[in-house]
Amino acid sequence: MKLKRPTLLLDLKKCRQNIQEMATKARQHNLIFRPHFKTHQSAAVGDLFREFGVNQITVSSVVMAEYFASSGWGDITIAFPVNVHEMDEMDKLAGKISLNLLVENIEGVQAIAAGIKHTVGIFVKIDAGYHRTGIPSDDHEQILTLIRLIQAKERLRFKGLIVHNGNTYHRKNREEILKLHNDSLSKMNQLNDFLAQNQILSMVSFGDTPALSITENFAGIDEIRPGNFVFFDLVQQQPGICTYSQIAVALACPVVAVHKSRHEVVIYGGAIHLSKDFLEDENKNKVFGKVVWLDESGWSEPVKDTWVKALSQEHGIIKTTPENIGKFYVGQFVGILPVHSCLTTNMMHSLQTLDGAEIKTMRGAGVN
Amino acid sequence: MKLKRPTLLLDLKKCRQNIQEMATKARQHNLIFRPHFKTHQSAAVGDLFREFGVNQITVSSVVMAEYFASSGWGDITIAFPVNVHEMDEMDKLAGKISLNLLVENIEGVQAIAAGIKHTVGIFVKIDAGYHRTGIPSDDHEQILTLIRLIQAKERLRFKGLIVHNGNTYHRKNREEILKLHNDSLSKMNQLNDFLAQNQILSMVSFGDTPALSITENFAGIDEIRPGNFVFFDLVQQQPGICTYSQIAVALACPVVAVHKSRHEVVIYGGAIHLSKDFLEDENKNKVFGKVVWLDESGWSEPVKDTWVKALSQEHGIIKTTPENIGKFYVGQFVGILPVHSCLTTNMMHSLQTLDGAEIKTMRGAGVN
Repeated sequence: MKLKRPTLLLDLKKCRQNIQEMATKARQHNLIFRPHFKTHQSAAVGDLFREFGVNQITVSSVVMAEYFASSGWGDITIAFPVNVHEMDEMDKLAGKISLNLLVENIEGVQAIAAGIKHTVGIFVKIDAGYHRTGIPSDDHEQILTLIRLIQAKERLRFKGLIVHNGNTYHRKNREEILKLHNDSLSKMNQLNDFLAQNQILSMVSFGDTPALSITENFAGIDEIRPGNFVFFDLVQQQPGICTYSQIAVALACPVVAVHKSRHEVVIYGGAIHLSKDFLEDENKNKVFGKVVWLDESGWSEPVKDTWVKALSQEHGIIKTTPENIGKFYVGQFVGILPVHSCLTTNMMHSLQTLDGAEIKTMRGAGVN
Repeated sequence: MKLKRPTLLLDLKKCRQNIQEMATKARQHNLIFRPHFKTHQSAAVGDLFREFGVNQITVSSVVMAEYFASSGWGDITIAFPVNVHEMDEMDKLAGKISLNLLVENIEGVQAIAAGIKHTVGIFVKIDAGYHRTGIPSDDHEQILTLIRLIQAKERLRFKGLIVHNGNTYHRKNREEILKLHNDSLSKMNQLNDFLAQNQILSMVSFGDTPALSITENFAGIDEIRPGNFVFFDLVQQQPGICTYSQIAVALACPVVAVHKSRHEVVIYGGAIHLSKDFLEDENKNKVFGKVVWLDESGWSEPVKDTWVKALSQEHGIIKTTPENIGKFYVGQFVGILPVHSCLTTNMMHSLQTLDGAEIKTMRGAGVN
């Protein structure tokens, strides 16, 4: 493995295993598996999903939809409240592929009806407690009104309800995540019962890697859209959604200085590589990444009591122990397990497999 | 101004004014002005500096040095502890331009001496209290040994001492920043006195926008390398380094949803546009950006009690007041003053001037 600079390594075996587990789960529960591709943003990683029968995907922007449409994906949901300024682009896409859009207000519906000449599927975004976007799940009348408006528009096909429980990311352990998931499910089922009484048949599409990775309760869910599971990261590991060994990416960084007296190591690898997302460990330390040893077959489990404690634009500072400081040296490459693999991948623009092949992401291919 | 998606607006008038003030200050104090170009990473913004007589620059990576060398800059300091894996690239650069490198350990010096066939200038990185990189300023003997080693190498020209007081970023007001600056200056002057006693003439190069923007004390400093001042941002505004009206960039974002009941607005504009840097306001709110109204001539002062309270990958959530919520509507573009303009610019890959011209950054030009 020839390395020069901060390089995002991808362990394809772990990645395939992660995809397989989620695909198997979807099949066992008879769910449509529409993975979110914003985590990897890469045509080549996308192709891995085809090995597991995936042919419907989720993206988070029109640009990303265009990119994946051009690499052969024919059924795409843009899971972001519709931006009324991109109607021409969406119309063009809808002429080529089966496109689903997401709305949460009348303005969005009106803009689509006015601006898109082709048939498009429409999901209504429901807020089941995250309070980021969507109509509150208990606001039955508002939801019904919006669906009726969609159904009244000629080229708009109402598909169903879409939920993303991003608040599972703020729960500390599996039990809390499962509780939240079950709570959301029951809210969605109540809503769907109400809609059924009003002769509206609505599929339910669920997001979020944390809950979908660990739950076996899919009652009332028709489709799942997890994204992060393809690589996982420390945010998922901390509450027990994945193990360290399931994390499929690590940022290889050259050591540029070792400060023995304070047990710190300076790496070339900073905020523009990892992103500034951090988590707090059990001692309230800010953790911007955990350190692993690299070898030809990949990387080790995290080095004990050793973490990235600070990031500048291009610098990272590793804090380690008196026992471990002697194992670091200038010129060495160490691996950093990212806190948030979606943001790290977005920053890095390309990944390198363990046998040295380069995989460009969308942004690495010049698509912004 | 035609906008579709999150777009980083650049007010060239403010930007030029920021450059002019720093250039004037440097001239008045007889300092070499070697601005850090990592903030804008753009050949076109770099060209503005030429209007003020700048011909020496600072960058933070070899790739960035290559990029600016190819756009005509002939004297570049790479202000990052040398990465021993990029010797071939640095050697090639040193054959074309006047190149300065930065070392803080013997390994770095040996690698340069072994790997670079052309003459290069060498700065020794000194830690005057930030404790990120560098040799502690009071470790006189270690510094002397390293300088002697540099001087013994044939093609290495010892230039001087380089300091970056990044800890000024953690001070709450101008007084604390100035105190820290003066403290660093006196440490550097003590060190330089010691070196002079040992027949070593050493120039002193100082970093950091916060102190350099407000101090008039440059005793013993020969060169300044501020970067962020070209755009400024909320991190600089908070302790009083700049005013809101000096901030030269704002991210224009489309509103995609308005949640009147909780006084929140959803924008298309998230972590992949702004970065996840945040600051805390006086009420301990996390602030990921402040909101301004856009108009043809630029943007307003920040809207009162209105800020970006959360960022997901592509979403931003604005918190506002009952009085202001009615001023937001779906399809509107609002401006966000960034917390950290260096990271925002790095993410965005291009800027748009107020008359609609696009300025690509290095990454937008496909250089990674």
